[in-house]
Amino acid sequence: MDDLGKHLAQMRAKPPLVHNITNFVAMNVMANVLLAVGASPAMVHAREEAAEFAALAQALTVNIGTADPAWGAAMQEAAAVMNDAGRPWVLDPVGVAATRFRQDLCARLLELKPSVIRGNASEVLTLAGLSGSARGVDAGDSVEAAMDPARDLARATGGIVAVSGPVDFVTDGTRAVRVANGHPLMAQVTVMGCSLNGVIAAFCAGQPRFDATVAALAGYGLAAEVAARQATGPGSFQPAFLDALAALTPEALTAGARVSAA
Amino acid sequence: MDDLGKHLAQMRAKPPLVHNITNFVAMNVMANVLLAVGASPAMVHAREEAAEFAALAQALTVNIGTADPAWGAAMQEAAAVMNDAGRPWVLDPVGVAATRFRQDLCARLLELKPSVIRGNASEVLTLAGLSGSARGVDAGDSVEAAMDPARDLARATGGIVAVSGPVDFVTDGTRAVRVANGHPLMAQVTVMGCSLNGVIAAFCAGQPRFDATVAALAGYGLAAEVAARQATGPGSFQPAFLDALAALTPEALTAGARVSAA
Amino acid sequence: MDDLGKHLAQMRAKPPLVHNITNFVAMNVMANVLLAVGASPAMVHAREEAAEFAALAQALTVNIGTADPAWGAAMQEAAAVMNDAGRPWVLDPVGVAATRFRQDLCARLLELKPSVIRGNASEVLTLAGLSGSARGVDAGDSVEAAMDPARDLARATGGIVAVSGPVDFVTDGTRAVRVANGHPLMAQVTVMGCSLNGVIAAFCAGQPRFDATVAALAGYGLAAEVAARQATGPGSFQPAFLDALAALTPEALTAGARVSAA
Repeated sequence: MDDLGKHLAQMRAKPPLVHNITNFVAMNVMANVLLAVGASPAMVHAREEAAEFAALAQALTVNIGTADPAWGAAMQEAAAVMNDAGRPWVLDPVGVAATRFRQDLCARLLELKPSVIRGNASEVLTLAGLSGSARGVDAGDSVEAAMDPARDLARATGGIVAVSGPVDFVTDGTRAVRVANGHPLMAQVTVMGCSLNGVIAAFCAGQPRFDATVAALAGYGLAAEVAARQATGPGSFQPAFLDALAALTPEALTAGARVSAA
Repeated sequence: MDDLGKHLAQMRAKPPLVHNITNFVAMNVMANVLLAVGASPAMVHAREEAAEFAALAQALTVNIGTADPAWGAAMQEAAAVMNDAGRPWVLDPVGVAATRFRQDLCARLLELKPSVIRGNASEVLTLAGLSGSARGVDAGDSVEAAMDPARDLARATGGIVAVSGPVDFVTDGTRAVRVANGHPLMAQVTVMGCSLNGVIAAFCAGQPRFDATVAALAGYGLAAEVAARQATGPGSFQPAFLDALAALTPEALTAGARVSAA
Repeated sequence: MDDLGKHLAQMRAKPPLVHNITNFVAMNVMANVLLAVGASPAMVHAREEAAEFAALAQALTVNIGTADPAWGAAMQEAAAVMNDAGRPWVLDPVGVAATRFRQDLCARLLELKPSVIRGNASEVLTLAGLSGSARGVDAGDSVEAAMDPARDLARATGGIVAVSGPVDFVTDGTRAVRVANGHPLMAQVTVMGCSLNGVIAAFCAGQPRFDATVAALAGYGLAAEVAARQATGPGSFQPAFLDALAALTPEALTAGARVSAA
């Protein structure tokens, strides 16, 4: 990989407005994560304004965690705006295996070819049409098992697929890397994955998407490593993580990224 | 009471998926509380999927704090699924005295006979058909005043009723105990009661419900006591509380529980 | 200005119930801010109960950040209840320049003559009918540029207008002051402005609104200054801020307020 820190520097040099249609659990934390990393967040989901707002944004995230039919329509309309503008959008198929509603919504969103799909192994397996063993929103499958389906999914969408796990896997269907940054405490805190979507979107705005996604994952995981050294549990981890994200420098990202070919 | 810590150990040995239809204020904190204590949370409220999702869960919580008619329908449908499966669900009648809408919704939910009802004294009094003096979502009545109505309510529903206060009261209509664990700082932090519902639900999954509810209340209050010793106010209390919940051991719960007959 | 601390003392002597129809991002933090400062919060937005609940409250806040048409109707109905009762309500026109939906909703709310309008310079400029350069929910315009439009807006509504920024500006159309309390970390944390609305509403309940608003802004900024001295970033700032708000005394507010004529 090239110098990953430059993607952070470039994002901060012109902070992108990131439009998020995300779940209720994630909204506050995600906004704080985006502010901490140096981007400008907005949470806008009403169908009456989502597409209009998307036209103002440099990137979009779509998360089905607490969607309903009206939100689903807003997601599709906002994603279409980003596609027309050539701007990136990130799909998080939270718990897609759990209900028919989620599967139908994700099928419609997949037709819009997300720039980046980020999920755990079970979610990516489900999206790839394989039999995931998704249990609620947890990852029942291993990242390893999702690698080939992730490549297939990336080829089918023409975008990036990132599989979150103890070691992340990122592919564009041709290239593929592992990102080893992160800490087990992340799994004891809710919406850590959801909030990462925003960082990916911010990095992808105006930057090459595969490299930007890898940089976002490495930087996010690196901040978690720093935070974990100060935390005494999942509660104290959270403020420490935001502090670490705000303090993350391009140089530290470049030096600390643990990325290897896959 | 028997050895209360074993209920925590048993819950963690096979972490239950807890389905929550809870209010917007509580969602994030409640998810973090459930993760910290060792359970697996999911927040799912859309009517298009709530009942389908409930079938995957080992326990359900229903909280009327920010409900609307569509959510009310989803609550009833999900609760019916749990009843059919013989699985526990917890009702929190937040601020039920405040509006006709809340009273009507709670009346419908009461017909479904909640496994556990948890509320403050005013809310329990209102549910029991007495004249509560609920003011917003605060408790204007004393736990003492709600004890007999709580027993009546438990007999009427065939479930457990837990009244939160400086000293909690728990009854199944026959047995009754006081739980003295807790700390005044809990009342200065929002959704501490709402989040407790999830812990009760997690403990009740597959366990005797009266004992499990008592264990949940004692463990929760104990974690608050630990957190309060490290906190300098309601802000620092919150991360400390999650840390304490994650660090709580079955042995500490057994040793620290302050439960007495009522 | 008179002795500002007395407004805090008076609010705490009889804690007002503050009804909030606010955005999803802000709900939890805003409830905790209101509890920390000593008031009693409730988040109620469903049209089926908003007006009925408003009749129980001593003050109301309305925030359009994540509104939809149903919420808009609930906001209007609740605001009308407060107007009829002679009780204060605060409008926060979050990102009003961004979409037609927000502009239409704010136009309807302005007709109800908010007791207090609080926003950043761009939002106030947009409300005042001038060409703001609002970008998302950030403030693209300077407080200085919004001073005259704020005076005009205050005269048109007969209420208070508070413009948030590095130095805040508060006017009732005749009087005007600057409030210099605060800290740059506030801009790196989401919903700090939204949560302030609740404090303003709590202070205004039963108190002279211009002085109460100035006291709320000064006290809020002062707590931020205290918190920033202990924080190492935007994450640790948040619990420290709630601690500082809870620990704020009337004496400290009077002594620390930095208010000057404008």
